[in-house]
Amino acid sequence: MTRTQQIEYFTEERSVEAVNSRMDQAADARLRTIMASLVSHLHAFAKDVELTTAEWGAAIDFLTRTGQMCDDKRQEFILLSDTLGFSMLVDAINHRRPSGATENTVLGPFHVEGAPIYPMGTNISLDGKGESCLFMGRVLDLDGKPVQGAKIDVWCDNADGYYDVQQPGIQPQWNNRGIFVTGKDGTYSFRGIRPVSYPIPDDGPVGQMLAALGRHPNRPAHMHFMVSAEGFETVITHTFVNDDEWLASDAVFGVKASLLARMEPGEKHDTKWKSNFDFILNRVG
Amino acid sequence: MTRTQQIEYFTEERSVEAVNSRMDQAADARLRTIMASLVSHLHAFAKDVELTTAEWGAAIDFLTRTGQMCDDKRQEFILLSDTLGFSMLVDAINHRRPSGATENTVLGPFHVEGAPIYPMGTNISLDGKGESCLFMGRVLDLDGKPVQGAKIDVWCDNADGYYDVQQPGIQPQWNNRGIFVTGKDGTYSFRGIRPVSYPIPDDGPVGQMLAALGRHPNRPAHMHFMVSAEGFETVITHTFVNDDEWLASDAVFGVKASLLARMEPGEKHDTKWKSNFDFILNRVG
Repeated sequence: MTRTQQIEYFTEERSVEAVNSRMDQAADARLRTIMASLVSHLHAFAKDVELTTAEWGAAIDFLTRTGQMCDDKRQEFILLSDTLGFSMLVDAINHRRPSGATENTVLGPFHVEGAPIYPMGTNISLDGKGESCLFMGRVLDLDGKPVQGAKIDVWCDNADGYYDVQQPGIQPQWNNRGIFVTGKDGTYSFRGIRPVSYPIPDDGPVGQMLAALGRHPNRPAHMHFMVSAEGFETVITHTFVNDDEWLASDAVFGVKASLLARMEPGEKHDTKWKSNFDFILNRVG
Repeated sequence: MTRTQQIEYFTEERSVEAVNSRMDQAADARLRTIMASLVSHLHAFAKDVELTTAEWGAAIDFLTRTGQMCDDKRQEFILLSDTLGFSMLVDAINHRRPSGATENTVLGPFHVEGAPIYPMGTNISLDGKGESCLFMGRVLDLDGKPVQGAKIDVWCDNADGYYDVQQPGIQPQWNNRGIFVTGKDGTYSFRGIRPVSYPIPDDGPVGQMLAALGRHPNRPAHMHFMVSAEGFETVITHTFVNDDEWLASDAVFGVKASLLARMEPGEKHDTKWKSNFDFILNRVG
């Protein structure tokens, strides 16, 4: 049996090598790189904590229930990624920008393509709920010059903490959504409501995990922005109401210091609140 | 805003600290330890490979499909754990034994409680298929003394590569399963078939992953054994046919050098094959 005697079988000590030595035939070198790193880190995790068989079983059960919670409206694995800071990390790795450029944050599950394009100043709140707020500011390049033709796609929850797509038939379609395009001066403005904080869906495995970790499911109040313009890197981000109680403990780790937007009293006879925020785009190509 | 200025928000550099600093309120200290290690290794993985947003999306999709493949007969997450060597690693961590004691390997998904208890020598192959084989040997302690009253629970696939529970109505119930109890001399023997290799279920996400990695789904031929006796640590293991073509590349990394069992010609007028293997139990308590 000289053939089998030369084989290196699986051992605890060399578990990573045993698995990763099997990937030589992978057609895609990038897949091999990713899987080899994943195996290395997964095994290191099990060794670090000396994972018990019962704990392994609990993990299998948790992952299974997480997958089975998913349907066309609910993505529990993205929630898991979000609540472990993994989504924000991937976002950060993929959107490193020069100092001064507006930072990205997670897209979240509630963006919808094809929102109405409105003239500047339009009120996007269609359900009459909430405290009125004027959102305004400029889209600039890193030299401080106005960006013309920038498309500003915005969306937020209503005053009850739900997006329109979470309440079809209850909220008007396109409630608190709209697209605005800048002119020569790069300025933008639209009316809506002061955003309110809300919990991520916590009636599934991820909610159970958060509870077990002593974490709450809340996100601080924010307005979503996707700002794109020819020749510039698209920015997907939020602005956060700067005195929200959940800023320091956003369930999905989306808050960055540079994205806090001061909520100030609005002008007499107009909106109750006013939020001024400039977007600084990074030129590409 | 002195309050918010003191907050440490999420950054790529300190992503692990941002997440793990939120677990102080976990009721279970062990859960906190496990999750902190998991977050640390998961983030290190994303940073090592600079995971792209598209790759992250593919991973979310893969995990979702893996969960949705699971039902009461199919556990795709265990298959995933098995094929990444994770199940064998957890098994190894939890079953470290003194040198000389029979090593564990994975239980697998096909053990069934309550198999018939037979007298030594009984033939457990009930479907008349396959090449006959006598399994025999001794159950000993680490001093080489026979262990009386050891329960030997055995199971294997039939000659077509399927366990009885995979083919209800096609195979007889309890085909290739049985329990034997040792007497004073610690010996055991039963008749069955020479085990054949078979593929793990590869019509799901795990099969797709193996194909992308250039790996086959096959397990080398093996007989499952669970050997338990009062005062000894239970051994869950397989013996592997020592000249199987898949020994060096078992899809679930279950093979250990100490578990190879020589397949020899059987005695005239009895079985075609004979496989002799001693189980050495580790005393506990």
